[in-house]
Order: sequence, then C-alpha cells, then structure tokens
Amino acid sequence: MVKAAIIGGSGYTGGELARLLCRHPKISLEAMTSRRLAGSKVADEHSNLGGFVDLKYEQVLDVKEKYDIVFVAAPHGASMEIVPSLIERGMKVVDLSGDYRLSDPKVYTKWYGLEHKDVKNLGISAYGIPELFRDEVASAKLVANPGCYPTCTCLGLAPLFADDAVEERVIVDAKSGTSGAGMEPTMMTHHPTCGSQIIPYKVGTHRHSPEIQMALEKVSGSPIELIFTPHLMPIVRGMLCTSYVQMKRTFDKEYLLRLYSEFYSGKRFVRMVRSPSISSVVGSNFCEIGLELVGTSTVVVMSTIDNLVKGASGQAIQNANIMLGLPETAGLDFPGLGV
Amino acid sequence: MVKAAIIGGSGYTGGELARLLCRHPKISLEAMTSRRLAGSKVADEHSNLGGFVDLKYEQVLDVKEKYDIVFVAAPHGASMEIVPSLIERGMKVVDLSGDYRLSDPKVYTKWYGLEHKDVKNLGISAYGIPELFRDEVASAKLVANPGCYPTCTCLGLAPLFADDAVEERVIVDAKSGTSGAGMEPTMMTHHPTCGSQIIPYKVGTHRHSPEIQMALEKVSGSPIELIFTPHLMPIVRGMLCTSYVQMKRTFDKEYLLRLYSEFYSGKRFVRMVRSPSISSVVGSNFCEIGLELVGTSTVVVMSTIDNLVKGASGQAIQNANIMLGLPETAGLDFPGLGV
Amino acid sequence: MVKAAIIGGSGYTGGELARLLCRHPKISLEAMTSRRLAGSKVADEHSNLGGFVDLKYEQVLDVKEKYDIVFVAAPHGASMEIVPSLIERGMKVVDLSGDYRLSDPKVYTKWYGLEHKDVKNLGISAYGIPELFRDEVASAKLVANPGCYPTCTCLGLAPLFADDAVEERVIVDAKSGTSGAGMEPTMMTHHPTCGSQIIPYKVGTHRHSPEIQMALEKVSGSPIELIFTPHLMPIVRGMLCTSYVQMKRTFDKEYLLRLYSEFYSGKRFVRMVRSPSISSVVGSNFCEIGLELVGTSTVVVMSTIDNLVKGASGQAIQNANIMLGLPETAGLDFPGLGV
Amino acid sequence: MVKAAIIGGSGYTGGELARLLCRHPKISLEAMTSRRLAGSKVADEHSNLGGFVDLKYEQVLDVKEKYDIVFVAAPHGASMEIVPSLIERGMKVVDLSGDYRLSDPKVYTKWYGLEHKDVKNLGISAYGIPELFRDEVASAKLVANPGCYPTCTCLGLAPLFADDAVEERVIVDAKSGTSGAGMEPTMMTHHPTCGSQIIPYKVGTHRHSPEIQMALEKVSGSPIELIFTPHLMPIVRGMLCTSYVQMKRTFDKEYLLRLYSEFYSGKRFVRMVRSPSISSVVGSNFCEIGLELVGTSTVVVMSTIDNLVKGASGQAIQNANIMLGLPETAGLDFPGLGV
Repeated sequence: MVKAAIIGGSGYTGGELARLLCRHPKISLEAMTSRRLAGSKVADEHSNLGGFVDLKYEQVLDVKEKYDIVFVAAPHGASMEIVPSLIERGMKVVDLSGDYRLSDPKVYTKWYGLEHKDVKNLGISAYGIPELFRDEVASAKLVANPGCYPTCTCLGLAPLFADDAVEERVIVDAKSGTSGAGMEPTMMTHHPTCGSQIIPYKVGTHRHSPEIQMALEKVSGSPIELIFTPHLMPIVRGMLCTSYVQMKRTFDKEYLLRLYSEFYSGKRFVRMVRSPSISSVVGSNFCEIGLELVGTSTVVVMSTIDNLVKGASGQAIQNANIMLGLPETAGLDFPGLGV
Repeated sequence: MVKAAIIGGSGYTGGELARLLCRHPKISLEAMTSRRLAGSKVADEHSNLGGFVDLKYEQVLDVKEKYDIVFVAAPHGASMEIVPSLIERGMKVVDLSGDYRLSDPKVYTKWYGLEHKDVKNLGISAYGIPELFRDEVASAKLVANPGCYPTCTCLGLAPLFADDAVEERVIVDAKSGTSGAGMEPTMMTHHPTCGSQIIPYKVGTHRHSPEIQMALEKVSGSPIELIFTPHLMPIVRGMLCTSYVQMKRTFDKEYLLRLYSEFYSGKRFVRMVRSPSISSVVGSNFCEIGLELVGTSTVVVMSTIDNLVKGASGQAIQNANIMLGLPETAGLDFPGLGV
Repeated sequence: MVKAAIIGGSGYTGGELARLLCRHPKISLEAMTSRRLAGSKVADEHSNLGGFVDLKYEQVLDVKEKYDIVFVAAPHGASMEIVPSLIERGMKVVDLSGDYRLSDPKVYTKWYGLEHKDVKNLGISAYGIPELFRDEVASAKLVANPGCYPTCTCLGLAPLFADDAVEERVIVDAKSGTSGAGMEPTMMTHHPTCGSQIIPYKVGTHRHSPEIQMALEKVSGSPIELIFTPHLMPIVRGMLCTSYVQMKRTFDKEYLLRLYSEFYSGKRFVRMVRSPSISSVVGSNFCEIGLELVGTSTVVVMSTIDNLVKGASGQAIQNANIMLGLPETAGLDFPGLGV
Repeated sequence: MVKAAIIGGSGYTGGELARLLCRHPKISLEAMTSRRLAGSKVADEHSNLGGFVDLKYEQVLDVKEKYDIVFVAAPHGASMEIVPSLIERGMKVVDLSGDYRLSDPKVYTKWYGLEHKDVKNLGISAYGIPELFRDEVASAKLVANPGCYPTCTCLGLAPLFADDAVEERVIVDAKSGTSGAGMEPTMMTHHPTCGSQIIPYKVGTHRHSPEIQMALEKVSGSPIELIFTPHLMPIVRGMLCTSYVQMKRTFDKEYLLRLYSEFYSGKRFVRMVRSPSISSVVGSNFCEIGLELVGTSTVVVMSTIDNLVKGASGQAIQNANIMLGLPETAGLDFPGLGV
C-alpha cells in the first residue's frame, strides 16, 4: 500500500479526501493534520468517518515520517509555506489551494494579493485536469489541483477549443452549491441569506477566472476572452456551468457530439449525456456534459460535477493515482447518487 | 369600487390575483371561476385566503353580470376561446396566458403549435410591461400580460437597447423558482427531481424566447438575436435573469447606471441596486436591477422579480390599474419580504 | 399618526418591524438605531425597504425626542439596560428579547445565565400573546414580546389546557426555519451544515422551554410538564410545532374542534384548518392550527406561523396596536403568500 | 459471483439497488425488469449508472434463467402476484414492498385495503432488520424488506424495549426526505407545494404504523402503543425520527448509552453519536443514533438513515448478503457523504 497524508484535514476537502481514501484499494491514509483540532479524533469532526478513519489530528506532520503522497488542503498563502519542504523531503504533493495553479507569479499576485514565495516549485508544478493534461501530471512531483469552476468549465469547453471550432470570447454562467465556499460561516453562506435564492457574486472578479483562461488558452493555443459569472445556489453539493461560445464555422450538432465523443474517448470520468444533471454526479468523480446549438452560431455547453469530488478531492486522488503509477480510477470508480 | 372577476382561479396565478385583489383599495373581487372546483370555497383551495376571500368558485362567469375588469388566468389555447365574448360584452380584459402576447399570429402558431382563433383582438391587444409600454396599456381594452422571463429580462435590458448602446446579440441565462411551472405536478417539478439541483431546460426552444425578442425589438427599433437558456432551481418563488450584451462603444459603469436611473425615473417598481436579490422582491411587485462591466466590452445585467407577482399577477393588476385610470401602484405598494 | 422608533434595527426582526410599520395606517416609523450601522441608510441594509423607509440608522435614540411606542429589538441582556430609561421617559415599550418574558427573575437567571437588572419593570411587564392575555397587554406600559416557539406552541395548545381537557405532560416537537436563528452566521446556520438536513438542537435545554411552560401554566392554572425538542430545518421563514398531549377523558374530534372554534372566536389571526401549512402563513401574522386524535387518548396538535411575523415583529405590532388603543389588526390585515 | 435480478427497476429503489449492486464484490446484477421501460437502456433512465450498468430493461424475467437472489421492487399488491413463482422456482427473494411485512393477513387487509393472496409465503417470510432479527433472515427464503420509517424508528428504540426499560406508549415524530414518496409526481411532492415547508401527513394513519408496532412488540415481547406522525420535509434523501418514551425506572444517561453500545456491539451499520446527522449517513447504509434525557422520565431518541439505502435498497442488499452466506457488509462498507 502507498502511504498518504493530508495536511489541513479539518475542512470539507480534507474530510472528502479521507472519505475517499479510506476505501482506496492502493492508498493507505496514515496521517491528517489540523492546527485547530490537533489531538482530537478525525471521526469526531467528520462523524460519517466513524468506523472508517481511526486517526487523530496531528499538529503537523511528523518530520521523521515519509509519505508517498501528501495532499495539502491548506488555504492559499499557507500552502506555499508548506509545500517546499515536502518536495525537498522527496514526497509527491497534490496541492488543493490556488497557490500553484497560475503559472505566472505576477498573475498570482494580481489575483491573490500576495507575493509568490515558492516560484521554484511553481515552475515545476503541473495543472491537474487529467483529461486534458495527463502527461504533465504523470511526470510531476507537484500537482496543482484545479478549482471547481475551472474543472467544470474546462471539461465542458476543451473539445471546442482544441478543435479551433469557436471564437475566442466565452461566457460562463456558473452555479455552485454552497459547500464550495468552504467550512467558514459567512454572511453569504448564512442560510437565511442564501437558502431561498440564487446569488451572483464576484462578477468578473472571481479568482477562478484567470485559471479558466489559462487552462483554455493552453488547450486552444490562442488567447481567450472570458466573461465569468459565478452564482451561489441553495444546494450543498454540485455545480452546473452553462457556457456560451460562438462557432467559427457552421457545424451541426452531430459533428459536435462526435467531436466530444472522440475527445473524451477512454476518459472514464467524463460522460456525454442529453441532459447533464447534478444529481447524477453527486458523490462521484464524474462530469456530465451536454450541448445545444442555438440561433445561428451559438453553442450552449452544460457541464456538471460534484464540486467536492471532481471539483476537489476526487480529482486530487485521480491526480495522485496517475503520479504514483496506479490505475487512474482506483478508489474512484463508483457512480453518483442519481437522486 | 371597480368590479373585477378572475377566470381560472384555481392555479397559482389565480390565487395570487386573489391574494392581491382582496386588499386592493379600489378594486373589488366579485367572482372567480374554476371548472374543476366549481361550487367549492376559494379559501378551501387557497387556505391563506381564509378570512379574506369569501367567494365560491363558479363554473363560468354569470352572463348577466358585468365586470369592469376581467383577469383571464386560463391556459394558452383556452384564453382565445374566452376573451372574445368578454371584449364583446364591453369588459376590459387582462389575459395572463400566451395567447395575445405575440403580435404575429404566424409566430404564435410556430411556437404554440396552434392556429390563432382570435386574430381580431390580437390586433388590438397591448403588451403589458407598463414601464416600457405604458401608453399602449392605458388605452387598451385587452392587455396581454407578459411572461415572467420576458418581464424580468426586458426590464433588465431595455435601457441599453433603447439607447442603442449594445450589439444585437444578447445571451440570457435565466433561473426560475418552481412556481413558474404552474400547479400541475410533472416529473420535472417532482421534488426528488428538482429539489437538489439546478436544471437547464428547453435550451433555445422556450416559448418565452419570441416574446423577449419581440419586446426588445420594439424597444430597440432594430433586430435582436436572442440566446435564451432557462433553468429550474430549487426555490419556490423568484427569478434571476443574468444577461450578457456587448457594448457598441466603450461606456463606463457610471454612464450606464445614469442611463438606467433616467430610464426608470418615476417608475415605482424598478429599483437599481448594487446586488439584485430575489429575497428583496419576493412577495412584491418590484424588480431589482444591477449591472457590471466585465472584460473589454461586456455588460452583465442581473435582474430579479417574484415570478408570481411582477412576473404574473402583480403586473396584471398594475396593468388593470392603468387601464382603469386608477393609481398605477394601487394595491401593490408594499415591500418584498427581504428575508 | 402615532410616532414609533425601533432600537436595534439592523437584524431580521428590526427589518421586519420596518417592513410592516412602513405600511401601517396609524403608526409612523420615525427612527431606527444600530450601533454597527449608525449613519448608513436603512434601505442599504434592507434593500427591500428602498422607496419605503427613508431613514438613516442613529447611534442611539435622540433623548429630546419622545415616541409613543418604542420597539426594542436588542439582544437579551442588552434590553434590560435600555428599557428602564424608556419607561421612565413615559414611552410605551414592546421588548422583543427574552429579558422581560419570564416573570420570576430566578428562572431568568437559571436559563439566561445573567442576574436580572430591572426587576421593577419585569414586575409590571405583560406577556404579549394577545389571543391569550389581551387584557394585560391593553393596560401595559411594557410588553414582553414572546419567542417564536412559545407563540406557536401556546396558540396550538391553549384551548386544551384552558378547558382542563388534557394531562399535564406535553411533548412539543418543533421545526423552525433558519431566520429564527438571527442574523449572525454560525456553524449551525452555515448552509452546507443545515441546507440538506433537519437538525435537532438544544434538546430539553432551549431557553424557550420555561417560557412555554410559564405561559401554558398561566392558561391552565396548574403545573405542566414540558418536553421540548426544537429542530432547525432548511427553509428560511416559517415554523411548525407538532404537539402531543393525552386527554383526561375521551373526547371526539368534533368536540375538540368546537372547543377551538369557540376559544378563538373573534381572534382574527388564528385560523382552524384541516391541514396547517407554513406556506399559507408566510409573510403574514396568521397562525394556522389543526388537530388529529390518534390511538386511545392522544391529541396531535399542529400549528404554524411565520416566525418573523406572528413569531416576532408582527405580534409586536399587534401588541403595540392594543397598547395604543388602535385596531388590533392595523397594519397586519393581509394574507400570507400561500405558495 | 452470485447472480441477481431486480424486478421493477425503473423507480428510485430499483435504481438504488443497481447503484449498489454494480460495485458489489460478490453479486453480479444480470437482469432488471420494467414494463414501462422494456427495451430501453437502464443507463438512459438512471444516467448516473452510465458506464456501470450495461443492461436493458426486460419486460419480465426470462423463465429459463435462474438467479440466486431476486430483488422485487414492485408496488404493494403487485409483489404478492410475483413472489410465489420465484419462490417456487427455488430463488431467494428480498421483497421491498409492504406485502410480506405484516405477519397477520388481517392486519394487512386493514391497512392496505387488499386481501392477501399469498398467505403461504407470508407465513415463511422474515422481517429483515438484520440488527434485530438476523437469525430469521439468515434462514429465510423470503425476506420482507422493511419500510424506511420502521427501520429508522425501530433501530432507535429497540435497545430500550429489549431491556424493558420504558413504558409501552411511544410517540414517533418522523421527518422524511421526498424521495421516500417514490417516483410518481403528486400534488404533495410538487416542488411548489413542499419545497419551502415541512408537511405533516397521514397523522396516525400511515401504513408504516402497524409495521413499527409489530417490530417493536417483537423486540419487547409486550404490547406497544404507537403514536406516529410522519412529515415530508424539503430535502431529497434522508430521514430523522425523533421518538419519545417514558422510562419505567430512573436511569441516567450513561446507563442508557451503555445499553445501546452493548446492544449494537458488532453491528457495523449502527453508530452511536452525540448528535445524529442526516448528512453523515446520506449515500450509505449507516444509521446514527443519539439520545437525551429530558424532564423527570422522558427519553428522546433521535435516529437518522438514508431512506433509499438503509431505509430500502441498502438494507435489501444487507439482507441478501446474510441470506446468501456472504459477508453482511459486502458492497455496503463505505461511509456517507458527510456534507
């Protein structure tokens, strides 16, 4: 068994990593840290793990222990303080924060308001959407695990941009469940605020914007203009991205569906469907994609994921599997709830 | 007191008309019809009206009675069978169905799959968004009360199109509460289907598309291309339309906000806000609008209404007030719930 | 017009008071205070009030101003610091906190963990459920506005206890929307925590327990044993209390329904129905009650209210109306949303 | 591999059986039937199963095939027409309907309004809550899979009744997600009806009442009086039962917790926790139980399950495992979602 640790295991993504790793056939979860909860049982914080995870939170990882893979589920800013020593000690790392996602440190500074403190490892990190950038992940020591919005959006749009089928301007109208906001209570995630409405927020200014743009430009090879509007909606898990692009030439729907089928051929976790559904993917690492042609030239792409699985911890494990030479689907090969 | 009747009073819009009319200072609700519920008490079907509406449903309107205003809350197809005789008998009519909204009967046939049977009254009907077409409403004998999506979208976009400020292509990503689907249970509104997700439906094919296009073209004086994606979301009341247009020239946000303020000056039910909220308008006839500039040239307009009030029964009463020469806000001048 | 002020107008009950008072035909809202928001516009905090409430928050009430009625929407502990000087200056007060509800200061100390600092006014305060204790309210200078759970429970059970029809032990299984928890974000009201489940909390230890017991004992004239389990459920507004009592003798359902009808005869805001519904009362000051006989001797009573209206601000205005000699229903006589 | 079939695979419990069986290490799902969907792909109806279940619905089971275990997910009334021939052909059966749960056919007729047509097999069926009646399940050819409410209630109360610790009268206030109502849209599960409220229904008259009573009497050995109030709440999956019993003698909480721990020692799927949570069990076969002592003598027991897993399909597989001599937890040993 491969040995794994989670740094920052108190939040939703940490809990979700543990939920998935505790049943992983090849990876053994051996340590979880949390400064706030050090000394207490993991199953006391995440009661669903009772009987599955028999660990206590540690303050920090024991420096004498070596893990094959470390998942860093710390906030941005904190990750880049932690990752360098892990890499130095020869451990492979999947970082779930935003610290290693934006390849240009100036772009990082612009969007996160911080100097990047680990430019060296930023340079060697791979951006981990395996369906798009598998080779880089396979050879990486450090994988930057993408944000939920970028994962859902880029899986939905990549075939079109890879085929040079659409104009550079893309409008993404994204709707996320509230667990994407993390475990810290805020006025916006306060149930009376968000429980009976859908709320657009950070219109054009969300930190996932440059990430989506970077990833799509990497796929496309050309510049992209992105208009990104996230919304908070009153469900806990799940995300839908409705994206709008204009075709460069006139394609029919069959052509586009074939394009997608070929692009995702052999990619276990992407499923083309007539009507993508959040319920179908909740709890699982799957992404559902559907599309429609509207008007003279517009493609409407709809994509759904579970923001905590394919949008965070599931994809992190998928990346780890690839980095470690394990079957890509190990520990993740089960269906969503469906209803 | 002005005398009013509701034809088709068993559904949500009929109940909502009664909820509002029962407190109206100038209109007296004197009759409600329902074939299904004829003979039973209105308050048995809508228990919130107990103590307020002491009527029984009638099979049809008594032909010997004359009402100053009749609200027709029948399904499309049925309305155009009912309206002609009401008009003939000299009664003013607000029709809440889709039958009199599309001025071109061929367009009606295309989208509703029916021959139009009352082209004569279609020709004289006014499209009732009072903030945009008040004069026509004021002189009309028959007002076609708009759909919820068109009301919310057009109020959000009218100032831009009236000013010739934006390109003709508009993308509307709309999210509606489930009460917009009406009272008939379906697989899509079954709670296990829709209770934990947001569902795009009728992408590019929703019947409100030609209505939005017609209304915006009337405001703009030029052709519009509309990409319209409705979504069903897990709240009961309320609607958000997120619309995307491209500016023809470069405007700053202040210019646009001023444009809106001037356009809606004196319009009681439209409120410009920083962050439009569904909760703020629920229960009321208000529409909240906000906007952001994103990228080089895109305006993102967000507008919210209560789909049953400003999107249906409230606007119907607003139209009736204008048709009858009453104060436009009579019976509607109270705030939304807020939380 | 009667002049009114709200102390502590930033929260949900303060906003709700303003929502109702701004349309009140006899009371004019002239001031609202908030230490946190002093100087800012009320309509900026509660955007639904835009166009209705044109006040700015004041730090504290101007000592030179005299109001006919002051609503104190401050937290418990703070209220008893504020109320004495208001009473002294000859103003009538409705206090929405828990400070003046429990007639015995020792019971207050036990449940709130504080010494009572205003025993004098505690002695003269009236407990304001007008349907049960109208005379005391009518002559009071200070009314303690009841909690939402006590209002809903006691209206549901009072006719049985007043008639000495049931045994002293009562089980109340209560379900509240999240707005009852107030405006402060907490882990429990964080949407990912509470958005997809119902959560029992403070089982047997909720501060509303002694209040329910006190009120029912006042109605009954004998001791009551109360088992009270509140639950937080994923809706914003509204509350259902399901209460279980055992009959002393065998009554049939008709007898009990008649008992209720007579008890609430002439009480505008209580409505006996077959199936009490939260949707029917949301937004309004109404309480719906229904009951069933189960087994040999058990009465199951179901009662619903809007926790922010009849459970807080609406009842506060109802109490104020009575204290001021206005019609009891003034400003409150409109139906709930229904759907 | 053991061979399994599902009769009636179009609904929620059928889909859920397939979701679980497709990852079962010892059971191979080989056929699913649906009259309505015969000929279409299972994954077209349940898109979450795409890539996992490659079956088409059959009209009926092929009479030449023999399965080791057949899950019958047909409506009550239909099951007792199907089961006899399966038993006759030597197949083991888990029936998920109500047809074989009530051991007395007269009680069945009273609550279901039908004559029982298969009294013979009713006589040999085992009531399948494995934590309570494992031996009977182990030797059964036919297991009646319990209802969701009885499973959740009886697991919560069994240790108290087995110990003769409580009086015979028990009050169960149960709250269920909407998926428990099945796949057929109705007025009650219509989102506008149930999406913003909690609705008590069939108070004292729900068909699960006699089932709960029968199971608890079997555990207790004495008569029980049950007051059962189910509520529909606005979540899709999950159930909470809040039960109230009176102690015969005075026990302290530690005693009761020890009683539960011992009773459920070695029972994998029951977890004692401080605060039972629906989120912790959703997606899984676990039941969480917590309790509080209130007043002089009342025990409040709270228990949660996923109504589609432990309340239906998961428990059916658990029963099948036992009947087939497989490890009881096979295919079910994973945690709930947690958030």
